[in-house]
This record gives sequence, C-alpha cells and structure tokens, in this order.
Amino acid sequence: MNYRLPLAGIAFVCALFSCSSTPGGAADSPASGRAEWAIAIHGGAGVISKDGNPDEIAAAKQGLREALSIGREMLRRGESALDTVEAVVVALENNPAFNAGYGAVYTAEGKHELDSSIMSGADLGCGGVTGVVTVKNPIRLARRVMEGSPHVLFGGQGAEAFADTHPDIERVQNSSFDTERRRKSLERWLEEKGLELPAHLVPAPEPELETEAEAEGSTPVYVQAADVNQWKSTVGCVVLDKEGNLAAGTSTGGMTGKRFGRIGDSPLIGAGTYANNDTCAVSCTGTGEEYIRHGVARDIADRMRYSGKTAQAAAEAVVFEVLQPGDGGVIVVGRDGSIALVFNTLGMFRGAANSEGRFDIGIWE
Amino acid sequence: MNYRLPLAGIAFVCALFSCSSTPGGAADSPASGRAEWAIAIHGGAGVISKDGNPDEIAAAKQGLREALSIGREMLRRGESALDTVEAVVVALENNPAFNAGYGAVYTAEGKHELDSSIMSGADLGCGGVTGVVTVKNPIRLARRVMEGSPHVLFGGQGAEAFADTHPDIERVQNSSFDTERRRKSLERWLEEKGLELPAHLVPAPEPELETEAEAEGSTPVYVQAADVNQWKSTVGCVVLDKEGNLAAGTSTGGMTGKRFGRIGDSPLIGAGTYANNDTCAVSCTGTGEEYIRHGVARDIADRMRYSGKTAQAAAEAVVFEVLQPGDGGVIVVGRDGSIALVFNTLGMFRGAANSEGRFDIGIWE
Repeated sequence: MNYRLPLAGIAFVCALFSCSSTPGGAADSPASGRAEWAIAIHGGAGVISKDGNPDEIAAAKQGLREALSIGREMLRRGESALDTVEAVVVALENNPAFNAGYGAVYTAEGKHELDSSIMSGADLGCGGVTGVVTVKNPIRLARRVMEGSPHVLFGGQGAEAFADTHPDIERVQNSSFDTERRRKSLERWLEEKGLELPAHLVPAPEPELETEAEAEGSTPVYVQAADVNQWKSTVGCVVLDKEGNLAAGTSTGGMTGKRFGRIGDSPLIGAGTYANNDTCAVSCTGTGEEYIRHGVARDIADRMRYSGKTAQAAAEAVVFEVLQPGDGGVIVVGRDGSIALVFNTLGMFRGAANSEGRFDIGIWE
Repeated sequence: MNYRLPLAGIAFVCALFSCSSTPGGAADSPASGRAEWAIAIHGGAGVISKDGNPDEIAAAKQGLREALSIGREMLRRGESALDTVEAVVVALENNPAFNAGYGAVYTAEGKHELDSSIMSGADLGCGGVTGVVTVKNPIRLARRVMEGSPHVLFGGQGAEAFADTHPDIERVQNSSFDTERRRKSLERWLEEKGLELPAHLVPAPEPELETEAEAEGSTPVYVQAADVNQWKSTVGCVVLDKEGNLAAGTSTGGMTGKRFGRIGDSPLIGAGTYANNDTCAVSCTGTGEEYIRHGVARDIADRMRYSGKTAQAAAEAVVFEVLQPGDGGVIVVGRDGSIALVFNTLGMFRGAANSEGRFDIGIWE
C-alpha cells in the first residue's frame, strides 16, 4: 500500500486538497466573468467537408442557431437546466438536418431505431431508452424513464411498452422519421456492401427522361459532407442554469446500416451522457463503441473531481489522449459555467451561449 | 479559472504528481506479499439471513468453492485472466444456486432475460449483451461480442441475432433456465402485487392429500434467505493473471418480476463491469439502477487512477459513501493483486484466492 509512504502520502493529501478546492473551478470563489448560466449544443462530429453541400451545411447551422436560441431564452427566463436540455434536444430531434428523431439514419433493414438519455446533475436522476421505433421525441421518453420509473434504462420493445403507459408521449409511424437524404445514405452504404435496398424503400419508378437528366448532373454533386458513415452524428445539449444546476441530454438515430440491436453510447449514462453538479455536464458524439469502452463522459467528470482539472483540460485530455483521431467530440459545461467544445474530427456541428453575451455557432476550427 | 491561482496551482500540480505516481499502488514498487495472481468471485449480495434455508446456503457456498477452484487451477497453470473469468462465470451460470444462466429469476411474464458483460484490462476490449433468452451462457456471448464484432453492446433480439451467427454459442429453450425455487420467488412476488402466475408456470394439480401434507409443514419453513426481492443476485469474477493482465465479467438473470426490457448494470461497461490494467478489475452486484447512476465500477477505477487510492480504499469509498446501505457490493482485484470484497448489505456470497495460498469463501462478515 504505497500511499502510506511519505512522498506518495504528500501527493495523496495534495490530491485530496485539490479535489475539494478546484473542481468546478470558480464556483466557490467566483472569478470575474463567471457565467450565471451557460449552454452548449452539438449536432454531430466527423468528416464534415468544407466542400460539402452548402444547403445542408446552411440548414445545419440554422438548426443549431434556432435550438441554441430556444435554450438561451429559457435560461434567461430562469427555467431549469433539465427543461432546457429537453426542449433544445426536442428542437434538434425535430430538425431533419440532424441524425436524431425526424431525419434519423436507417438501419440495414431500412428502419429507424432511436436512442436517447438525460441526466440531472442536482440529484443524479437519469434515464435512457434504446431502440425505440415509434416515439417522436426519444429525449422526452428518456426523461419519463428518469422521473416516472424506478429503472434508468429500457431497451427495444420494453422501451415501447414503457411509452405505452405514458399517453403524453407522442407516437408516430416509424416511416415518419424517413428523409430522402438519409435514404440515399443507406443506398450508398448498402451499395458498398453489395446489398439491395429494402423493398419498402425502393422509390416508385419515374419517367426515364427525368431520371437521365438527374444522372447527367442537373443536381450539383458535392462531397458527401454529412454522410453518416463518416459523420458520427448525434445531437446533444449541456446546461448550467441560474440555480447552479447542471443537466445533459443526448439523442441519436445511430449509424447508417447499424446492426440490429446494437446499442451505442448515446443512451448510456457515463458513456454518452453525464451530469453532476459537483463537476460538469457532458454530451458526446462519435464512435459509440469507443465512448462506451472509455466511459468518456464519466472520465471527463472524474478528471475534474479527482484531479482538479478544468472542464477544458479534462475534455482535451480525454479527446486527444484517450480517444483516437477521428473518434468524435464532446461538449461540456462546468459547474462554473465554463464551456468546452472539443473534437478530434474534421468538424463538429456545435453552438454555445452564456449569460455573458456569448452566442456562437461553429462547424470547423 | 481558479486553477491559475498559486495555491490551487500547487494542488493541481500535486494532483498530477499523484496521478502519475500512485495509481496501481504497489505494482511499481512491490510490497512484500504481492500476489502473482489473484481472483475474486461473487454470487450476489443482499438480505441473506443466517436463518435461511441451510440447504440453499450450503449449495451456494459449495458452488462458490467449485467456481473458485476452477479459477485457481487455471491461474496456477498460467491461463489468461480473460479465459479464467469466462470459465468461472460459466460455472456460476450453470449452477442453479445463483441467479444467472440456469437458475435465473423470472420476469413478470414468467420468462428469463439474461444480461452479461466482460472486459479485458490489457486492451480495454469489452462486450455486453442484454435481454438474451436462448443463450445457455451469456458470458460466452458477451465475449464473442468483444472479440467478433465491431460493437460492444447488443440488446434483445439483436443479441439473439448476433448469437445466430456464432454456431459455437450453445442455445437452449428459455424454459431450460426454469427452477422450482425461482418459480416460487415469482409466485410470492406476483402475490404481493395481487397478480396471477402466468399460465405456463401453473403446476399441474396434485392429489389433495399430498398438498395438505405440505401445507401442514412437512417441509420446514425458513426465512426466504435467497428471495431475490431482497437478494440482489448476480454472479461475477475478477482476475489478475500471471502476465499482469486484469479481466472482469458479470452475469445475471436480473430481478424477479423485472419489467420487460429493463436493463440493469450487469451488461454495462463502467457500471457493473470494468477492467483496466492500469488500475483494477471490478464486478458489481446490487440495485442495478444505483450502479448505473453512480458508474460504480468506473468510479472505483478512477479513484485509484486519479486519487491514488488502493483498491480497498476506493471500493469502500464508493460502497459506503456513494451508495446507500442495502444497495449491494463489489469485488475488486487491483493490478498489484490486492483483493477488495466490499458490500453494504447483510451479506454477499463471495470468494477469493491468490498465489500466496489464500482461498476463502464467505457470506456474512
């Protein structure tokens, strides 16, 4: 037990001291510029080419701006971190520019399976759902799991059965999540694998002339900026409210062509989502398997708690030293209102705002 | 950012120093008695009354002894941590004394839904399955997910579909997990809720005389020692092998009467199972929701890594300061071969052995 050795003992005491004084940074001894409230959002990270379809890029930026505005207004009005996270994620889920809710990618079977989770930093309440197929806004269902169930995670038909007991949870046909753009992503993915498009997704035949015109390039050809084979897309939101409460939420349609029943990090507390008033709120976007393996959200919080790192330093350590280039990104709000937006991909759709007047949207550097 | 203030700066540096010098404890500066290999197992924690059915208690102890012996022999022979964890958990799954595999508890619908996960500390390889219904040994399927899939977690029918692609994974009828003892647990659970036993579990009528004889007490009445409403049962194994590699595995039938699709901590990396050669291997047993919320396995590893705690100190801090009395227990093997068996319940079925000659089985203090 070498922590009893004098030198290690000193380090140990220092580590303890560091634990009780620095996590959350300025919360106990406000530095100038400490934000009264803060919010960060993401709409996925990955190979987002600057030569991508400008319409898609513009739509994503506009979607981020709208969602961030919703959050900013709620926080200005003094609404709770949890309500803000839910409302902002709902806005992103309802926007087909993002891979969550309407606009979610397709599984190999041509369906949509949605995952989401939410966590309250004040009491560590949390809820998650995975593989839901008829719930319009999975983040709302995750919150019902958190608040209306002794459990914290429901999967597949069990999550649907749980939704059945909550009539306020809006249900839709799985096909209502369909978008032409994601259908094309699936088509490309299946083509690469030498597989056929599921029959229910094959479009009705069109007049030959029209088809030829398309093939000849009447539609401009862009780099597939937002192809989800490269764009690890997910949406998420992290918030510090005026009461000092943190919350985090994440929602996703998973990966194009994902294998039936595969569970990624988005519904998992400690992997894709984490919030604890003692440290920070985190939402992740990237290769889910790596985020589960490395418990990314939890690791960031623990580096703050046990090593006294700032949100920025903790996020950078995990994204650049633990994860591999190309894995994805994270958004973090510390209990002191600091915001970290860190990614090791070409880009990450993101936005951040706070009570000090910050309001910005970004994709690349 | 008060980490820039001189005092906090010192703490910050000390914390860094602590990080790089103390984790893993004696591994870099072997204390006397450092074990060459070490293993710990559990078979569930909870209200295990000393006045319980002595046959059930004896069967559980014998099962622990047998499983621990299998592990000890493998480790003596120099087999890997991962192979040892798999073989030991298989032995516990196949033993009806424990709530995993054969002998798993029933869901409210009178079925068995099994969860398991495994993790390799050497490379952080990991795999988990949840809600499997026809796989004889879920720990084996979890290992196939780890080694034969780019994914790390499969749920429900997706996990079954994954098993379909691995002909070496033994499949069974769901009813083959049935045991009379667990059927009675379900019966009691349903009775408390005012619910009927599912038709397929209602026993065929017996001659009236025999039934009366039973009712009059020809069978001794014991405290329901192992009633899974109180006994948070799961099985698990953590190992340090001769090569210095750590591994952890966990397997469970969940909770009697558990809600359809509920996912507990056992299949989740960082919650019920974690292993990292830099720190420790952990397997948990208890109220799964609390283990997910608090990321128990990962928290223990992070306290060792970032705060320089020993396995014992980290496990005690999480079990006694983070969890609530009655929540459950953990077993930990540190990279230095230290073993921690910590629980906040009346008892925990457990065993531990190492290269120094330790071999013990315990339930209560």
